[in-house]
Amino acid sequence: MRLVTNEFAPLSSVKIHDGFWSRYQDIAKDKIIPYQWRVLNDQVPNTEPSHAIANFRIAAGLEEGEFHGYVFQDSDVAKWLEAVAYRLSIAPDEELERTADGVIDLIAAAQEEDGYLDTFFQIAEPEKKFTNLLDCHELYCAGHMTEAAVAYYEATGKDKLLAVMRRFIDLIDEKIGPEEGKLHGYPGHPELELALCRLYRATGEERYLCLCEYMVNARGTEPHYFDWELEKREHRGFWGDGYQDRVDKRYNQSHKPIREQTEAVGHSVRAGYLYTGVADLAAETGDESLARAARTLWDNIVGRQMYITGGVGSQVWGEAFSFDYHLPNDSAYNETCAAISMVFFAKRMLRMDPDSRYSDVLERLIYNGTISGMALDGEHFFYTNPLSMWESATRKSGVAGHIRSKRPGWFGCACCPPNLARMITSLGSYVWSSSADTIYAHLYVGSDAELDVGGQKVKLAQRGNYPWDGHITFTASAGEYALAMRIPGWARTFTVKVNGAGTSPSVVKGYAILRRTWQDGDTVELELPMPVEFVESNPLLREDDGRVALMRGPVVYCLEAADNGECLDALSVSDPADFEPEEASTVFPGEVDLVGTAWRRRPWTSDTLYRRVEACDDLDEVPVRLVPYAFWGNREDTREMTVWVRFDR
Amino acid sequence: MRLVTNEFAPLSSVKIHDGFWSRYQDIAKDKIIPYQWRVLNDQVPNTEPSHAIANFRIAAGLEEGEFHGYVFQDSDVAKWLEAVAYRLSIAPDEELERTADGVIDLIAAAQEEDGYLDTFFQIAEPEKKFTNLLDCHELYCAGHMTEAAVAYYEATGKDKLLAVMRRFIDLIDEKIGPEEGKLHGYPGHPELELALCRLYRATGEERYLCLCEYMVNARGTEPHYFDWELEKREHRGFWGDGYQDRVDKRYNQSHKPIREQTEAVGHSVRAGYLYTGVADLAAETGDESLARAARTLWDNIVGRQMYITGGVGSQVWGEAFSFDYHLPNDSAYNETCAAISMVFFAKRMLRMDPDSRYSDVLERLIYNGTISGMALDGEHFFYTNPLSMWESATRKSGVAGHIRSKRPGWFGCACCPPNLARMITSLGSYVWSSSADTIYAHLYVGSDAELDVGGQKVKLAQRGNYPWDGHITFTASAGEYALAMRIPGWARTFTVKVNGAGTSPSVVKGYAILRRTWQDGDTVELELPMPVEFVESNPLLREDDGRVALMRGPVVYCLEAADNGECLDALSVSDPADFEPEEASTVFPGEVDLVGTAWRRRPWTSDTLYRRVEACDDLDEVPVRLVPYAFWGNREDTREMTVWVRFDR
Repeated sequence: MRLVTNEFAPLSSVKIHDGFWSRYQDIAKDKIIPYQWRVLNDQVPNTEPSHAIANFRIAAGLEEGEFHGYVFQDSDVAKWLEAVAYRLSIAPDEELERTADGVIDLIAAAQEEDGYLDTFFQIAEPEKKFTNLLDCHELYCAGHMTEAAVAYYEATGKDKLLAVMRRFIDLIDEKIGPEEGKLHGYPGHPELELALCRLYRATGEERYLCLCEYMVNARGTEPHYFDWELEKREHRGFWGDGYQDRVDKRYNQSHKPIREQTEAVGHSVRAGYLYTGVADLAAETGDESLARAARTLWDNIVGRQMYITGGVGSQVWGEAFSFDYHLPNDSAYNETCAAISMVFFAKRMLRMDPDSRYSDVLERLIYNGTISGMALDGEHFFYTNPLSMWESATRKSGVAGHIRSKRPGWFGCACCPPNLARMITSLGSYVWSSSADTIYAHLYVGSDAELDVGGQKVKLAQRGNYPWDGHITFTASAGEYALAMRIPGWARTFTVKVNGAGTSPSVVKGYAILRRTWQDGDTVELELPMPVEFVESNPLLREDDGRVALMRGPVVYCLEAADNGECLDALSVSDPADFEPEEASTVFPGEVDLVGTAWRRRPWTSDTLYRRVEACDDLDEVPVRLVPYAFWGNREDTREMTVWVRFDR
Repeated sequence: MRLVTNEFAPLSSVKIHDGFWSRYQDIAKDKIIPYQWRVLNDQVPNTEPSHAIANFRIAAGLEEGEFHGYVFQDSDVAKWLEAVAYRLSIAPDEELERTADGVIDLIAAAQEEDGYLDTFFQIAEPEKKFTNLLDCHELYCAGHMTEAAVAYYEATGKDKLLAVMRRFIDLIDEKIGPEEGKLHGYPGHPELELALCRLYRATGEERYLCLCEYMVNARGTEPHYFDWELEKREHRGFWGDGYQDRVDKRYNQSHKPIREQTEAVGHSVRAGYLYTGVADLAAETGDESLARAARTLWDNIVGRQMYITGGVGSQVWGEAFSFDYHLPNDSAYNETCAAISMVFFAKRMLRMDPDSRYSDVLERLIYNGTISGMALDGEHFFYTNPLSMWESATRKSGVAGHIRSKRPGWFGCACCPPNLARMITSLGSYVWSSSADTIYAHLYVGSDAELDVGGQKVKLAQRGNYPWDGHITFTASAGEYALAMRIPGWARTFTVKVNGAGTSPSVVKGYAILRRTWQDGDTVELELPMPVEFVESNPLLREDDGRVALMRGPVVYCLEAADNGECLDALSVSDPADFEPEEASTVFPGEVDLVGTAWRRRPWTSDTLYRRVEACDDLDEVPVRLVPYAFWGNREDTREMTVWVRFDR
């Protein structure tokens, strides 16, 4: 029996009308997608050439040349196509669709007779297909292209890419599996797992789910596939000096079978994609033990390894999870893609269990640690999302050498920008879901949705000025169903009015439930008061002891040198009542900053490092401004930033 | 005109009788020196073989074999001999002296006809002598062996090693210098500079000083010697894949001429040795511009780049200085040898200018960041001396991967243990100095000294229980001179009695000066009250804002998990009056700990990471114990340690 208790409204049924997200979608539409198209075609000066389209042209025999780029270069084209699909769902664009159709024709032309499709192996290593699942991202690229195929099919009804990818998946199915003569393998970089679940849902073909199930269950079992593979290719790697001594199994989460894994470890994007696939598979197959595994890993991440911004993967070494309660702020890697993978994971968990423990994290992610990866010009991107930054240290210290003080342009390894594009363009599909008798509003994103609730077709609209304001209005269409509205964990109180009359709905798993017979035009007003809050960390999180983060609603704020001068750690705050919101539009229309007073340690007049603490008071009261963390680094002055501010009671 | 204003009493004129240091000297005598001897002879099981003595035997033709060890392996033998020399000054030991004589005979036998002496080049690369001053430590080893030669000569009157080294220095003088046909080079790892000054003082031969002067003045000038050398050897390195692209000139402080250097940069031991040599040369030659350069670099280090323990060189990358006010606690490299090099530097500065700005740092170093490198068993050593340590992070995080939670045994690269041995055994030579009319007591180390003050021979004794107690008694012998006693920067007040009667001496540059005609047996009692102090950092030192270090007298204290449980950052302190000293002898006889109360954030009952700060009080008052930082990690439980404790006013 499936564990799916509610189904998200697909993108095609949701239209976003939202001050915050419509703007982000415009950036994706007008900036990221066209810019990425130029990147893929090597038309952006002073940027590492992508060569991604060229690789497909070479594989298709349309031009001569060598393969260039990473082994996973194909996935950039896939992510672009996926984002285009979502973007076409938002607003039709014939020219863009024609361009995408052309790319799909090219991809189809590059596919080999037997269905094989991966330009790296086709061009550079045709004899080595399926010999290095560990490092070479063959299945990873297949996964991304499958996601693109499903998305494009759902957006346009065109199934050409879907057919291409079904042929390739069929080939993979022939090569990999439990049967004798097949490779008993699975992706070195998970992604295909979640893509197979999407393909299963789009086509209804059980064998895709079976292949996913095989890959998830085989992972980490003995004899270990990656050891066997390494032996088989005589310890030859693909890079560097050639000899590969051993496999770092924690890095790719194959150190033990998934049901025995209790801590998130290793490369954080691999982890996020794997866990998403695991949750998806559990939901579709009804495998309780797998669902428990997903829940255990979720709880570990959210309860012990996630920054307040939603960022995960604190270590630059291996772009990886570190360990419980080890969340350093200045060296935090927090790859943008890792935060995005948690968005995917959250949605799968919600689909099994509409509990605000998942949707609160989803909200934390979308307003903070994901979009922080993008400058508001849509053309500059952070890979890393630290929670404090001192520009001098990024330039001069090994600890923070991987951190940037300003978002650079598109990178050579361009995974994060298109991942943001697909998250932003598909955001409509995260807002609403429905079960047989309940409609869930998981996010407060202004939108019109058409939902199926127990066979009834229902229209619901929500409007507001979130995340800056906690007043949200819903308009319902007629029917018998419950409206379940998430009461965010950050809210101390809330009020609900139906058609202007106050009511006290029950709250189940963090959702306020209004069950009634609705008439067309019934309105619900949800009020979530948004005072400025000081948030503290678990005492076990050593880095943040004695500090607070300032939040208002779901938005995490930070101090920047641009507003507050250098040496932000010399500042301390003592009372949230000292702060109030101010609409400032500093870098984003409608942006709400926090303004207030803090205490700054008085600069020393002598050039010494240490002195006795004397009784005299040496703090100056100073005005400070905090800006949303997601918007940091969007101004010229990026000398310093910090989220966690010292707290002097 | 020389800039020497006062001269330190040599080791032979000072006998230490001190609860603290006599024990350390016993450890050096009974443990380090014999243990190192076994290390040098590859007699310690389960330890990387040193092969250092074997290298000399091979070079001397006494056995067959290959060179093994680092290119600077010879320096381990030199440092051992130097420590032995000091140790023989402390207490004669015929057997040890015979052993040392034997080593010196071996070294002499290894020396080549022309004076050359460096077993690495002699055995492994005889054709490449003087072709890679940058990396190959030839001049560095010569420096250490010269220091040993001078020390052994001064301790025993035997000049065999001195003659050996004079011959080698003469050869170096033939090869290197400003004249055409000579190499216009200088050491890639400074050390020889300060050794040449010592050799000059021991022999009176001006040419040693001239060679030093050449090397110091040539450093960092254009055309750059290391660039020329790199070209000359066609960019071949000695290690790795061979091709050396460029020289990191900041790493070895040759990025600009010494008089233009205003910030300490690069490898911290190289820096410390260079600056020591620079100060030494300035003093002997009377070069004011050089003295200014030394002072500028001193001020930069002490005012902006030194930990409260005296540790320097915060970065593991290059074992290097970082940049002004960048002093992270958990990733601090702080090599033991770097702190020791600052001890040498301090002594040279004091010799020019008897100002407590130097001797206060000297004191900070000897009681904290140097001896922290050694376990009290004398057989385990830290290279790195962080100011906070979380064992899990040392094992699992890249940021702290170089940090150890326990002192390991002698290392393969064994620079720190013998450096500690020579510092500890020569400590007597740092206590007293004299000018024409003044005797300076720089350190409060129980000792008897014979001093020359303007031609008068004077005996002075001091006794006390420093650093645990601030009561120090001096006994003088007859004469007309001033006794200048350092009033430490940590002291709020002090009192002085002469023969029981209170007096109010003037204080000049941090020294209380008693000028009088002394009678034999006159006593001086100096009382330095030692309350527990909270010390704060400059607000620009971001890492320590909002924290205090607890000190008593010169001793920096730390919290350890062994006494206070895990998660030390959850603790805060609010008033030094909450603490009192307690003689505890936890790991060291007579050790004084600090006991008192702190506030601990109450553990959370839920497994969540973040929550609103509520008005309710969530701090528990708990008893805490702090132990001297130098003694941390001497017990079984080394899960956590921290010096800087959160300060809740």
